[in-house]
Amino acid sequence: MVGYAFMGAAHSQGWRTVGRVFDLPLNPAMAAVCGRDPAAVRAAAGRLGWAAAETDWRALVARDDVQLVDICTPGASHAEIAIAALEAGKHVLCEKPLANTVAEAEAMVRAAAEARSRGQVAMVGFNYRRTPALALARDMIARGRVGTVRHVRVAYLQDWLVDPGFPLAWRLRRDQAGSGALGDLGAHAVDLAQHLAGEPLVQVTAQTETFTTRRPVPGEGPGVLGEVTVDDAALFGGRLASGALAAFEVSRVAAGRKNALRVEVNGTAGSLAFDLERLNELQFHDHTQDAAEAGFRRILVTEDTHPYLDAWWPPGHGLGYEHTFVHQARDLLRAIADGTDPAPSFEDGLRVQRVLAAVEESAGKNSVLIPVPQT
Amino acid sequence: MVGYAFMGAAHSQGWRTVGRVFDLPLNPAMAAVCGRDPAAVRAAAGRLGWAAAETDWRALVARDDVQLVDICTPGASHAEIAIAALEAGKHVLCEKPLANTVAEAEAMVRAAAEARSRGQVAMVGFNYRRTPALALARDMIARGRVGTVRHVRVAYLQDWLVDPGFPLAWRLRRDQAGSGALGDLGAHAVDLAQHLAGEPLVQVTAQTETFTTRRPVPGEGPGVLGEVTVDDAALFGGRLASGALAAFEVSRVAAGRKNALRVEVNGTAGSLAFDLERLNELQFHDHTQDAAEAGFRRILVTEDTHPYLDAWWPPGHGLGYEHTFVHQARDLLRAIADGTDPAPSFEDGLRVQRVLAAVEESAGKNSVLIPVPQT
Amino acid sequence: MVGYAFMGAAHSQGWRTVGRVFDLPLNPAMAAVCGRDPAAVRAAAGRLGWAAAETDWRALVARDDVQLVDICTPGASHAEIAIAALEAGKHVLCEKPLANTVAEAEAMVRAAAEARSRGQVAMVGFNYRRTPALALARDMIARGRVGTVRHVRVAYLQDWLVDPGFPLAWRLRRDQAGSGALGDLGAHAVDLAQHLAGEPLVQVTAQTETFTTRRPVPGEGPGVLGEVTVDDAALFGGRLASGALAAFEVSRVAAGRKNALRVEVNGTAGSLAFDLERLNELQFHDHTQDAAEAGFRRILVTEDTHPYLDAWWPPGHGLGYEHTFVHQARDLLRAIADGTDPAPSFEDGLRVQRVLAAVEESAGKNSVLIPVPQT
Amino acid sequence: MVGYAFMGAAHSQGWRTVGRVFDLPLNPAMAAVCGRDPAAVRAAAGRLGWAAAETDWRALVARDDVQLVDICTPGASHAEIAIAALEAGKHVLCEKPLANTVAEAEAMVRAAAEARSRGQVAMVGFNYRRTPALALARDMIARGRVGTVRHVRVAYLQDWLVDPGFPLAWRLRRDQAGSGALGDLGAHAVDLAQHLAGEPLVQVTAQTETFTTRRPVPGEGPGVLGEVTVDDAALFGGRLASGALAAFEVSRVAAGRKNALRVEVNGTAGSLAFDLERLNELQFHDHTQDAAEAGFRRILVTEDTHPYLDAWWPPGHGLGYEHTFVHQARDLLRAIADGTDPAPSFEDGLRVQRVLAAVEESAGKNSVLIPVPQT
Repeated sequence: MVGYAFMGAAHSQGWRTVGRVFDLPLNPAMAAVCGRDPAAVRAAAGRLGWAAAETDWRALVARDDVQLVDICTPGASHAEIAIAALEAGKHVLCEKPLANTVAEAEAMVRAAAEARSRGQVAMVGFNYRRTPALALARDMIARGRVGTVRHVRVAYLQDWLVDPGFPLAWRLRRDQAGSGALGDLGAHAVDLAQHLAGEPLVQVTAQTETFTTRRPVPGEGPGVLGEVTVDDAALFGGRLASGALAAFEVSRVAAGRKNALRVEVNGTAGSLAFDLERLNELQFHDHTQDAAEAGFRRILVTEDTHPYLDAWWPPGHGLGYEHTFVHQARDLLRAIADGTDPAPSFEDGLRVQRVLAAVEESAGKNSVLIPVPQT
Repeated sequence: MVGYAFMGAAHSQGWRTVGRVFDLPLNPAMAAVCGRDPAAVRAAAGRLGWAAAETDWRALVARDDVQLVDICTPGASHAEIAIAALEAGKHVLCEKPLANTVAEAEAMVRAAAEARSRGQVAMVGFNYRRTPALALARDMIARGRVGTVRHVRVAYLQDWLVDPGFPLAWRLRRDQAGSGALGDLGAHAVDLAQHLAGEPLVQVTAQTETFTTRRPVPGEGPGVLGEVTVDDAALFGGRLASGALAAFEVSRVAAGRKNALRVEVNGTAGSLAFDLERLNELQFHDHTQDAAEAGFRRILVTEDTHPYLDAWWPPGHGLGYEHTFVHQARDLLRAIADGTDPAPSFEDGLRVQRVLAAVEESAGKNSVLIPVPQT
Repeated sequence: MVGYAFMGAAHSQGWRTVGRVFDLPLNPAMAAVCGRDPAAVRAAAGRLGWAAAETDWRALVARDDVQLVDICTPGASHAEIAIAALEAGKHVLCEKPLANTVAEAEAMVRAAAEARSRGQVAMVGFNYRRTPALALARDMIARGRVGTVRHVRVAYLQDWLVDPGFPLAWRLRRDQAGSGALGDLGAHAVDLAQHLAGEPLVQVTAQTETFTTRRPVPGEGPGVLGEVTVDDAALFGGRLASGALAAFEVSRVAAGRKNALRVEVNGTAGSLAFDLERLNELQFHDHTQDAAEAGFRRILVTEDTHPYLDAWWPPGHGLGYEHTFVHQARDLLRAIADGTDPAPSFEDGLRVQRVLAAVEESAGKNSVLIPVPQT
Repeated sequence: MVGYAFMGAAHSQGWRTVGRVFDLPLNPAMAAVCGRDPAAVRAAAGRLGWAAAETDWRALVARDDVQLVDICTPGASHAEIAIAALEAGKHVLCEKPLANTVAEAEAMVRAAAEARSRGQVAMVGFNYRRTPALALARDMIARGRVGTVRHVRVAYLQDWLVDPGFPLAWRLRRDQAGSGALGDLGAHAVDLAQHLAGEPLVQVTAQTETFTTRRPVPGEGPGVLGEVTVDDAALFGGRLASGALAAFEVSRVAAGRKNALRVEVNGTAGSLAFDLERLNELQFHDHTQDAAEAGFRRILVTEDTHPYLDAWWPPGHGLGYEHTFVHQARDLLRAIADGTDPAPSFEDGLRVQRVLAAVEESAGKNSVLIPVPQT
C-alpha cells in the first residue's frame, strides 16, 4: 500500500478485517506500506498492521512479496505509480479519482488493458458502491424496481471549508488534487449516478466557485496566506444516455452537512433515495402500489439477504463507513481468484474523469453544454 | 374573485377565515365570484360563500361593491384582467405566475405603478412566503442567522404526470399555462430563493424536458392524443447578486414526491432547510455553536412568537397548506388599510418572470448562461 | 355552543368551514354561543361567527333555534349541561373527557340512551380519531393489515409545565379539570388505543406524579402560590381484551415535545406508527413483504382516496390540527341526518373514563393491576 | 475468550481492531478461544484470529498466557466461569446479563471484590454505553445539559419472534437464558437508564407476556414443538431515586423494529433522544433557548471532540454496531493498565439483575410495585 493517511488507514482496516468476516478464496497478507518519512511510515506499519515499511514506492512495487499494489496517495501521483505497478506485473487498486487529468486516466486504462492480457486486474476505489444500501439500490434498479429513470440527483455536501481559517492543505491545491470539491466529492457523485442508472452521462453544463480564495499556508507563520487553486463548490447538470436528467451539487461550504452524499433516483415505477449520513438506510417508493398505501419506505439495509450482509451482524445492527473498504477488498480478492474483471474498472474511472473534465470545460465556457466523449 | 377551481377554493377559505382568526383593520365582504358556466359559478358561489355570481369578469370588475379583485384564473388571462381591474380603480391580488410572458408582466407592473399613485395596491400570490416556517426562515436570514449565503437550493417535485394516461389538461398546454413545471413550480421556487436570500438571481443556465410528449385529450374518445406543449421538468442553476450559487429542480414526474418543495440555504454562520411536505417544521443549523453540540434542529414552527402563530392554536398544533391563503389575506388587508405596498409586489412577480424567461432562453441555447435583466 | 376559549374557537372553525368543503345533508346555522362574561361572549360571537350570545347555558339550551348543543367547557360542567340539553330535546356534542367522574359519565350515558329513543344523538369530542392519518390507521387495522395486535403504545407528551412559573390555571385544579395530564392527554391516548385496536382495555397498572406541587395563583400578587391538585404525568400499562399489551405515557413536562401524540401498533402482519407533530403522515410496515424490501413506509395521507381527503386539496397539500373539528362536524351532521349513532358515543367516553378511574385507583394502590369494568 | 458465536465474533473484532486504531498502554494478544466442539472451535480460532483453541473453559482459565478471560457464553454459565477465572487470578470481561439470577450475580460481585484487592478487574459487557452517541448523552446529562431528570423512557424492540415458526433456540429457554426479551433487551435498557440518569431504579411495576408459547424444537422433525419458557415482551415502569419516572418496553415481536433501542430523557433544562437504528445520531433539545429557535437538534456524533471519535474517521463518516466492542476493549485495557476500576462493574451488573428480578416478581404479583434492593 502506498500512502497511510486517511485513505491508507481505511484501506488497512479493510485488509485486516476482510478475511475475518468473509470466506475468501485468497488470504491477503499485508506485506508492506510505503511513505516518504521513514520514521512515520515505520510507525504506521506497526499500527496499521503492515509487515514492512518502504520509503520509495518504486521499491514497494519491486518487492517479490507484493502481488497487489493499493494506491492511497493524492491524485497527482496515481498514474505514475499505477502504470509502474501494472508494468511490474502487480494487480492494482487505485483510490479515486483515477487521475487528475483525462490524459493520465487514458494512459492508465491502456496500461490496465495490457495488464489484463497478462492476467492482472485493476480497480478504482469508488468505495461507496459497496455501501450495502447503495449496492441494494443498484440491484433494485437493475431489476426494474424504479422502471425507466427520469431523474438522478446527487448532492455531496460537506462543510469543513466554511471556516476561512482552515489551512491551505494539499486538497486545496490544484497541482496536488487536480480539483476541489469537484474531483473529491464530484467523482463519487458522478460514478454513483452512472453506476446506479447503468448508463453514462453524455453532456453536462456546469458552474464552479471558490468562495474563499486565500487561506493560511501550513507551516508558515500566522497571516501568511496562499492562493486556493481549486473549487469550493460545483453545480452541474446533464443528461444520461437515455435522456434522463441528472442534477449534481458538490460543496465543502454547506454548513452543517458533514458528509451528506444524498442520492435520489426517480423512475416511472418507483424512486430510491439515500443519504450517507444514514448509511444503513435506503428509502424506496414503489409507484406501482395503490396510492392509498404507497410512500417512501425506510429499508434498514441490515438483512442477511442484503448485499454483503450475510457475513455481518443480525438485522438492525448497522455497519459504518469503513465497511465499504472491507467489501471492496472482498470483491477485489474474489475477482483476482476468479480471473474476472473487478468493477469499478479503470474504464469506469476514466468515464468519471471525462465527465469532470467536461464540467470544468463548461464552467469555463459560460456553462454551455459540453458533450462527454464516450469510449 | 375570478375563477373558482383549486385556487379559487383555497382563496375563498382564506377570505372566509381571516377575519375569524386575526384582528383586522378591514372586514372583507365576499361580494361576487366569476366564472364562465352560469350554473357552475352559482353553485360555487353558494358553496364557497360568495354573495353573488358573475359570468363575465368585466362585469365583476365593474361592480361598485367590489374594491379588490382576486384573480385565480390560468396565467394567460392574468394580464388582461389585472390591468382592467387596476384601471377600474380596484385593488388586485393576482395568482402566480404573474403572467405568461415578460411583456405581459411588464405591462402589469406599469398598471400597478399607476394605480399605486391612486392609492391602489397590487399583490401577486406567492402564498408559500406565508407558510410560517418560511416566514421564520426569511426573518432568521434577514437577522443574519445564516451569515453570508453561499448556496440556495430549491427542488419542487411532484409526480402527477408519471402516469402517461393523465390527460392533456390546461396546465399542459402552452397557450394556457405558459410553461409546465417551470411556470407552475419553478415560479414558486424562484420567488422563494430571491425572497429568502433577499437578493435577485442575476444569471441562469438551464435544461428542460418533456418526457411524455402526447397525452389523451379530455372530452375526446379513447386513444385520441394531443401534443404536450410544456415541460415536465426543468433543471436550472444560477448566481445570486452576491455570487452565491443557486440550484433549482422542478418536476412533475418525480415518483413518490407529492408536493415536495424543499428549500435549503447554506451560509457562513448557519443553514436552514424546509420541506413543504412537513410544513410546520424548519430545520436550522447554527454553525456558530460548538461543533460537539451542533446539528440541524427541528424547529416546530407553532410557537406564538412565530410569524402568524399568535392567532392560532397552542404549540405543536400544526397548520396546513390552506393557512397560507389566510395569512396572505391578512397581510393584503393590512396593507390596504395602512396604505403600504404589500409584498410580493407585481415587481417581484416580474422579477420571477424574467428568471423563467431566461431559463427558457438558456434551455434553448445549449444551456449557456443567460443574464437576468434587473430593473 | 357553550364555551369559547381554545376548544370553542376550534369548534367554531369546524362549524364555519364544514359546509364550505363537504357536501352535507344538513346545513348548520351557528345560532348562539354562551359564556359568563357578557362583553366577552358578545365579542367572541362576533369574531367566531355566532348569531347570538348568551350568558347562561340554561338559556342557550332553552332556545328554539338551537337543535344541537356543543359543550366546550371544562370537564366539571359537562354532565350537568349535557344532561340538561339532552332532556331539552337537543342533540349534544360534548368535549372530552366526557366527565370528571365515572358516576357523571354513567349518568350521561343514561341520558343519551333515553334521548336516543327520542331520535337525538350524543357524541363525545375525541377529535383525533378524525385526523385522516389515524382514520386511515383504523381502516387498515380493521382490514387486517397489521394482523393480530401484540402491542399498542401511546405517548402523549407536552412541555408547557416544565416552567415552574407557569400559573395555576384551571387545568391544574382537580375541582375543575378532574385530573391533569391523565384526563387531558390520557383520555385521548386511551380512546385512540381502544378505537384503533377495536377492543377495550381490561386491566391497568399505573403510576402518576406531580413534580411541581405549588404554582403562582393567577390574579394574585407575585409570590402567591397555590397547590397543584392534579398530576403532571402518568405512566400506565395494561391489557386489551385480546391479551395485547398496551403502554401509555402522558406528560406535560417532557421538554421539547410540544404536542407529541405518538401511537404505534405492532401486529403479526405489520405495524403502524403516527406522531401528531407530523399529522399528515402515517408510517406503515408490511410484515408480509419480503424482508429485503420491507420497512416503515411514510404514507403521506393526502390522497383523495384517504379518509376525508376527497374534499380537500391535491396530494401533498397537508391539513392541520383544526381540520379534525371540520371532520367531526361533518360526521355528526351526517349521523343526525341519517338517524344513525355517531361515534365516539357517550358509551365510548364512559369506557375511557373507567380506564382513567382504574388508572387513578392503581396509582393509589401501589400500581396493582385493576380490572376495568366493562359494560 | 469463551464462546465464539454472535458475541464471540463481535468481541473478536473488538480485540483485533482496538490496537490498530487507539493508542494503548497495553497490547492485547489474542491467546485462545474456547468452545465445546473441537473442530468448530479450531475453525473459529483461525477465522477470528485467536492463536489457540480450547474445548474446556477450565483449561482456558488455567493457561499461563491468559491474563484476561472474556466470557461470551449464555447467561447460565457466567457465574461459574467468571468466579473461576477471578479465583485463578485473571481479569474478567463478562457479557451481559451478568448472570441469570441475583444470587449468582451477588456471588460474582463478591468474587470481583476479592479479586480487586489482588489487582484484578472485572467488567460487564453493557457495550451500548460505548456507542459514541450514548457516551455523549451521558456526558451531557452529567454536565447538567438536561437539568433535573423527569422522565426516562427506553424501548428496545425487535421482531425476530413474530414468526411462529422461529425455532426454540437457547435464547427461548429459561434454563439457558434466564429470561427472554427481559434479560436480553431489558438488561441493556435498565443499565442505560441507570447509567444515563446517574441514579438507580428504586421500585418497579411490570407485566410480561409470551404470545407464542410453543415453537419448533431445533434438530427434531417437523411438527415437534417445545414449550417457550421465557417472555416475548415485557412492559415495566418505575422510579429513579430522584423520583423521576422511568418507562420501559422490551419486545421481540414488534414487527418492523429490527434493533430499535430508543432512549429518551426529559429534564427541566432539556431532553435527549437516541435510536440505535440511527446510532450515529443524538437528538438534543435545549430548553434554555428561546422557544422561537428551539427544537430537537440532530447531533451527528462523528466529531473528533466526541467520545471515542478522535481515533476514527472525519466528521460524517459514521461508525457501526461493532465499534462498541472496540471501545469496550479500549476502556478495559486502559483500566487494567491504570489500575482503575472499569465501568460497568459487576456491581452495575448486579444492580441491573436486581431490577430484572423485581420486574419478574412484580409481573407475578399483579404488577404491584416492588422495591429494588440497593446495596
